[in-house]
Amino acid sequence: MTDALIATLRDIVGTDDVLQAQAASAYLVEWRGAFRPTALAVVRPADTQQVADVIVACANAGCAVIAQSGNTGLVGGAAANDAQRHVIVNLERMNRIRAVDADNATITVEAGCILSDVQQAAVDAGLFFPLTLASRDRCRIGGNLATNAGGLNVVRYGNMRDLALGLEVVLADGRVWNNLTGLRKDNSGFDLDDLFIGSEGALGIITAAVLKLYEPVVQQVSALFALESPAQAVRLQRRLTAASGHNLTGCELMSRQAVELACTHIDGCEEPFDIDHEWYLLVELASSAEGHWLLDAISSVVERARREHEWVDVIVAHDVEMSRRLWHLRESLPPAQVAEGASIKHDISLPVSKLPAFLERALTAIREALPGVRPCPFGHVGDGNLHFNLSQPVNAHGPAFLAQAGAAHAVVHDIVAEMGGSIAAEHGIGRLKVAALDRYKSEVERDMMRAIKTALDPDNRLNPGAVVASD
Amino acid sequence: MTDALIATLRDIVGTDDVLQAQAASAYLVEWRGAFRPTALAVVRPADTQQVADVIVACANAGCAVIAQSGNTGLVGGAAANDAQRHVIVNLERMNRIRAVDADNATITVEAGCILSDVQQAAVDAGLFFPLTLASRDRCRIGGNLATNAGGLNVVRYGNMRDLALGLEVVLADGRVWNNLTGLRKDNSGFDLDDLFIGSEGALGIITAAVLKLYEPVVQQVSALFALESPAQAVRLQRRLTAASGHNLTGCELMSRQAVELACTHIDGCEEPFDIDHEWYLLVELASSAEGHWLLDAISSVVERARREHEWVDVIVAHDVEMSRRLWHLRESLPPAQVAEGASIKHDISLPVSKLPAFLERALTAIREALPGVRPCPFGHVGDGNLHFNLSQPVNAHGPAFLAQAGAAHAVVHDIVAEMGGSIAAEHGIGRLKVAALDRYKSEVERDMMRAIKTALDPDNRLNPGAVVASD
Repeated sequence: MTDALIATLRDIVGTDDVLQAQAASAYLVEWRGAFRPTALAVVRPADTQQVADVIVACANAGCAVIAQSGNTGLVGGAAANDAQRHVIVNLERMNRIRAVDADNATITVEAGCILSDVQQAAVDAGLFFPLTLASRDRCRIGGNLATNAGGLNVVRYGNMRDLALGLEVVLADGRVWNNLTGLRKDNSGFDLDDLFIGSEGALGIITAAVLKLYEPVVQQVSALFALESPAQAVRLQRRLTAASGHNLTGCELMSRQAVELACTHIDGCEEPFDIDHEWYLLVELASSAEGHWLLDAISSVVERARREHEWVDVIVAHDVEMSRRLWHLRESLPPAQVAEGASIKHDISLPVSKLPAFLERALTAIREALPGVRPCPFGHVGDGNLHFNLSQPVNAHGPAFLAQAGAAHAVVHDIVAEMGGSIAAEHGIGRLKVAALDRYKSEVERDMMRAIKTALDPDNRLNPGAVVASD
Repeated sequence: MTDALIATLRDIVGTDDVLQAQAASAYLVEWRGAFRPTALAVVRPADTQQVADVIVACANAGCAVIAQSGNTGLVGGAAANDAQRHVIVNLERMNRIRAVDADNATITVEAGCILSDVQQAAVDAGLFFPLTLASRDRCRIGGNLATNAGGLNVVRYGNMRDLALGLEVVLADGRVWNNLTGLRKDNSGFDLDDLFIGSEGALGIITAAVLKLYEPVVQQVSALFALESPAQAVRLQRRLTAASGHNLTGCELMSRQAVELACTHIDGCEEPFDIDHEWYLLVELASSAEGHWLLDAISSVVERARREHEWVDVIVAHDVEMSRRLWHLRESLPPAQVAEGASIKHDISLPVSKLPAFLERALTAIREALPGVRPCPFGHVGDGNLHFNLSQPVNAHGPAFLAQAGAAHAVVHDIVAEMGGSIAAEHGIGRLKVAALDRYKSEVERDMMRAIKTALDPDNRLNPGAVVASD
């Protein structure tokens, strides 16, 4: 049966693109090391019809299909784990920009396109694709869609869901749904696009999408505020939103510990102020409109907030180089935590208004639960999304610290749930958080998710074990 | 059985809020006159639990539930049509503003809130709720959500789906799903909110929602361009988007015929220019940022476009009163068509880039199919959405003209479908377009819709006959 399937898959995609054993190993990694993926084969289809044919062949052989594009996910969403019955469909060969429609401000791309290539294609067309995240040079559009990727510009442009106008999807039965319409208004039936987006390959395999483009930025200013409290960050965020006319394009909170590790471990990072501060808020304003009114806007906010003691110190970056240095500091926080040793991570969100209270509660609770722990919270305060990461105590044994992850998750996630937040803000559920989802989601919501999963994938052939718990 | 159900419903919502016969008649109208609704009763629950109890009672009695809020829909979405087995659940008593969270920029409202009351509540909180449409003083949030309402500000702020962060929904089995979280990022499971939004009461009854608020507008400018062609409108739209930094908040195309009828029939409408023009483009730029840069932006676009012969004449409205008059002209187009006699309507969308070609083809084809017809196309060109309405020939017999509606729809919708557009851009499917949906949607999409309908409403108790064709 297995041999017959491999032969069929070779017929479909070509012998060179059915990888097994050593040849498949590059695709069977999970870079956080939380999973050790295994699969019967990694198949690399060249087009949508091949994806469809692969799904049918696998179904006929009783095998499941796990979609993979850039394999940069953080929750084991593509972590196949059955060497006999899981086939990984890797989409990297499907990397064509199918069309750019400048007057409709859209680009049609295949799931295997690397995010930064899509960004560049937009630039080449005189436009701008705003989604951006640290893995932009490796992650691919299929994964961005399957996980409803967020990143640094969400506060102004939304998540991937907000940036997609229509999809092409291969369904569990091998049929292709083509909704690559590029329409900005379409109320003809249920919103299937948004159902597939963020479903992590469990409802269908997204093979292409029409994405919104924006006009290129011509005016930009960044600033770094030194703060005494997260509450000041929330208030500054609202003032900057108003003053800039919703042109706040980045709004990142950074804790002292997170900044300190970056300055210790990462080249090009240095302490931004003469003295240390408890919190930092990095903001960016940007617009495609000519002028210098964003600088005026930030200056007026800085001045008013100064009078009201809403910040302790501030750097306004007037030029590109200074701005680049500030953002380098922000982008260095995650690798700095890796360099410092073991880290327990949380990707949570709350209403923006509740972030200060959450931080107060969670920081107290986690310090009590894990003595010596060094919390390094940082993240997208404008979206209510924090990466509540915990670095190991100084000189601690990494594995021993990581053994406390479950206890730490319970402390943090319980507080998040109690305050009405999400335990999976932008990274998704994958396999990492399926049990947590079962714990924190209402029964009625889990029933709906199971009903929809069964409706679209009745035999549980698509990414079984991800997002929705298998029975 | 019927008497027993009525008694149960009275127990649930109170005797005065179970309306039958004459008392129910005000709720059994469909204002376009395309349907003559009938129902066993109109029930007016006061809270979410009563909605749930009504659904269970109706299910036990073998009756279906049709949700209604403002009853201003245009496609018969709430047109109950079974005097024995349809119960209308009218949500107008559920009209509480539950909460405003200024630092999260959200408002939590019940489904029975009138849209303009929500707009006012936002103003009272120092903020702004951008959804607006002609029926704003009568339509209610439940209907706005159930139909994913669009309207005049979509080009900048999106449809209702883009403005909703979370819902409270009563499901077909009477359970309540509470997702009123107000989160801007949440990737914990499938996107159920967006599935309910736009599903026209066929998957669940939305009882409340958390909506996004924006900062209030402090800077605004409108302009009316006289044009030779829709292609000029598309190009101007793009230039204005770029120059204003995506602060184009309204972008309405109006045909000569539509403007002429408004000036003939509606008080306060007058010819905007000394001579007639084929097409008009009404635009508005607005921002919450201080300054006069939007006037600078529009002035620069006007000047550059003048040199390139991209418009024939233009009025820039520097003050509120002139702006109000221009928008009064636009809002008078639909009532003017009513005053002129019979009208055959189409609510279509295309990629913005394809609108000029669509108009050329559709106008030629419809004039050939319906000799003497007076097309009055107008609408939201910035979203690719046109109301391709057809006024009866001069002195024609109204009913005879309307008898040609089916033929007209086939001509227009065939062209829309061929060009990759939607036959239901912002008004929905309801009962009016179920057959058309069957004609134009792919089998694979219809199968998915049916599968989801069955998954969430297995006994077809919620708005049967709407959106999804009953077997």
